[in-house]
Amino acid sequence: MSKVIRFHRMGGPEVLQIDDVDVRAPASGEVRIKVKALGLNRAEAMYRSGQYTFTPQMPAILGYEAAGTVESVGEGVSEYAVGDEVNVIPAFSFADYGMYGELVLAPVHALVKQPAGLTSIQAAATWMKYVTAYGALVDIGNLQKGETVLIRAASSSVGLAAIQIANLLGAVPVALTRTSEKREALMDAGATHVIATQEQDLVAEVNRITEGKGARMAFDPVGGPEVANILRALSYLGIFFQYGALETADLSVPVMELLGKDLTIRGYQLFEITQDPERLNRAKDFITKGLESGALQPVISKTFPLSEIVEAHQYMESNAQIGKIVIEL
Amino acid sequence: MSKVIRFHRMGGPEVLQIDDVDVRAPASGEVRIKVKALGLNRAEAMYRSGQYTFTPQMPAILGYEAAGTVESVGEGVSEYAVGDEVNVIPAFSFADYGMYGELVLAPVHALVKQPAGLTSIQAAATWMKYVTAYGALVDIGNLQKGETVLIRAASSSVGLAAIQIANLLGAVPVALTRTSEKREALMDAGATHVIATQEQDLVAEVNRITEGKGARMAFDPVGGPEVANILRALSYLGIFFQYGALETADLSVPVMELLGKDLTIRGYQLFEITQDPERLNRAKDFITKGLESGALQPVISKTFPLSEIVEAHQYMESNAQIGKIVIEL
Repeated sequence: MSKVIRFHRMGGPEVLQIDDVDVRAPASGEVRIKVKALGLNRAEAMYRSGQYTFTPQMPAILGYEAAGTVESVGEGVSEYAVGDEVNVIPAFSFADYGMYGELVLAPVHALVKQPAGLTSIQAAATWMKYVTAYGALVDIGNLQKGETVLIRAASSSVGLAAIQIANLLGAVPVALTRTSEKREALMDAGATHVIATQEQDLVAEVNRITEGKGARMAFDPVGGPEVANILRALSYLGIFFQYGALETADLSVPVMELLGKDLTIRGYQLFEITQDPERLNRAKDFITKGLESGALQPVISKTFPLSEIVEAHQYMESNAQIGKIVIEL
Repeated sequence: MSKVIRFHRMGGPEVLQIDDVDVRAPASGEVRIKVKALGLNRAEAMYRSGQYTFTPQMPAILGYEAAGTVESVGEGVSEYAVGDEVNVIPAFSFADYGMYGELVLAPVHALVKQPAGLTSIQAAATWMKYVTAYGALVDIGNLQKGETVLIRAASSSVGLAAIQIANLLGAVPVALTRTSEKREALMDAGATHVIATQEQDLVAEVNRITEGKGARMAFDPVGGPEVANILRALSYLGIFFQYGALETADLSVPVMELLGKDLTIRGYQLFEITQDPERLNRAKDFITKGLESGALQPVISKTFPLSEIVEAHQYMESNAQIGKIVIEL
């Protein structure tokens, strides 16, 4: 029997519980992994509380990211062997797999060998955020040197990853954060500018920074009414990525902004990248090189033991963190 | 002195008046055209009533499309000579040029030689609509054979052009119209299916037509609250083009549709194509070939004399027409 985190009803962090589960042997195309560290994601909190893109079947497993050792392999698996240090990239549904546990199953297509030089904690805090930011900024958005990107919820792990990738590309990352509280931390994290959206005029600030041109890109996991203002701050042919739905209200889109500037509003989930082997391979290359060069450096906010998964989710929902929350086993 | 249609205050069709104007000689890079026919566009009604992307300076000229004869050429103009039959493509601002008149100025980059076999009336009803539809469906959207495109306001001239281009590509044009009144006419115009949005369940109908997959593209000059429903009818990676703003209210975008299907919402004006010489040349080629093959056939709703410009605008705003309204001089 192994300890696996599951929930039996939807709700707050407290519905997460540690169950003793007999994790089955890996099937064809699967491996079983002894987990050393697992990364927490907003998507898991949304899934837990019934706000994700699909509804959990109880009891529900969850978790997109882990780093660990291959414990056994299913039939026909030749790319990985028992003892390999691997990381799990989100390329599956919680309906099928969940990484919150001591011993977990994962499909081979979601695996990558752990990059040299990373600790397990860093590795569990790498792939979701960098692949998500890479997919929007590079694969779809083709962000160029000198262009400005507005990064909302910039102190989230994906936001920090976007700041690092923008800097790697020679672009100008502008961090959007609600209050000035995290200003210094965001500048330290690489933001060229920080705009506190509850204290400053977003459109005026972006116009000042871009000399009236507007930003070429925005990258937003929140949504809601503030989107209208972000669209006003974009340039001609600007692109707005919505990659999460922390606010579930409809987006308000001012039609004359959309039309007058030929804007693009793009819904985006990293699965678009991770389910396409070619695009995923390009992502792995880009990110591995970025990690090796030191341009990409996973930011860890705090680690918790497995027994404190409820506290870890509470901490995630407090919005106090800058960077990734990791469970260390 | 020449008769030029202008307005001196914003308002309904009645603000349009015929003024006697001394049209200046063409400057460098310009030609002066003796107009034989001019096409009416929604954009002109919106500009006239103060709902366009910028505000008119009075007295204001207007008009995007004309067919006529080159009457004189400015310095350095070598591509066109006096007597050439030319068409004007919308590639300028009403702040600079307007085609509503007997004698008008136009910049050389906006000209194209009139395709063989077209009458002046057909030629004045060609470029705005086909370039607009081509830019979205082909240049940006890359619509493929077998894919479904939802065409809103399908009986407008651009809507009919989109139906013809979709058929030329081997795609499936689905006409969206408010009531069943224009159903037969739209089927005759080439629509594979017609959905009367006030009488039928749009999402259910599109799911039926596409066997549950949803439409790959939507092409909409209206906007407003109905957009949410159109987004629900799109497929994974579907793209929604907003190419006009007949409703000026904000678009409502259901965030879980946007995110769950990785949708694209794209503001689009044909100037994106007409201001880029390479893209405009590709558009001219595509459309000229389509006209020659007979796949593209300009649909004329009604012609009026210049003296009835007010009635012509009233007719345009009645939504009774199917196809283009043209002023014949």
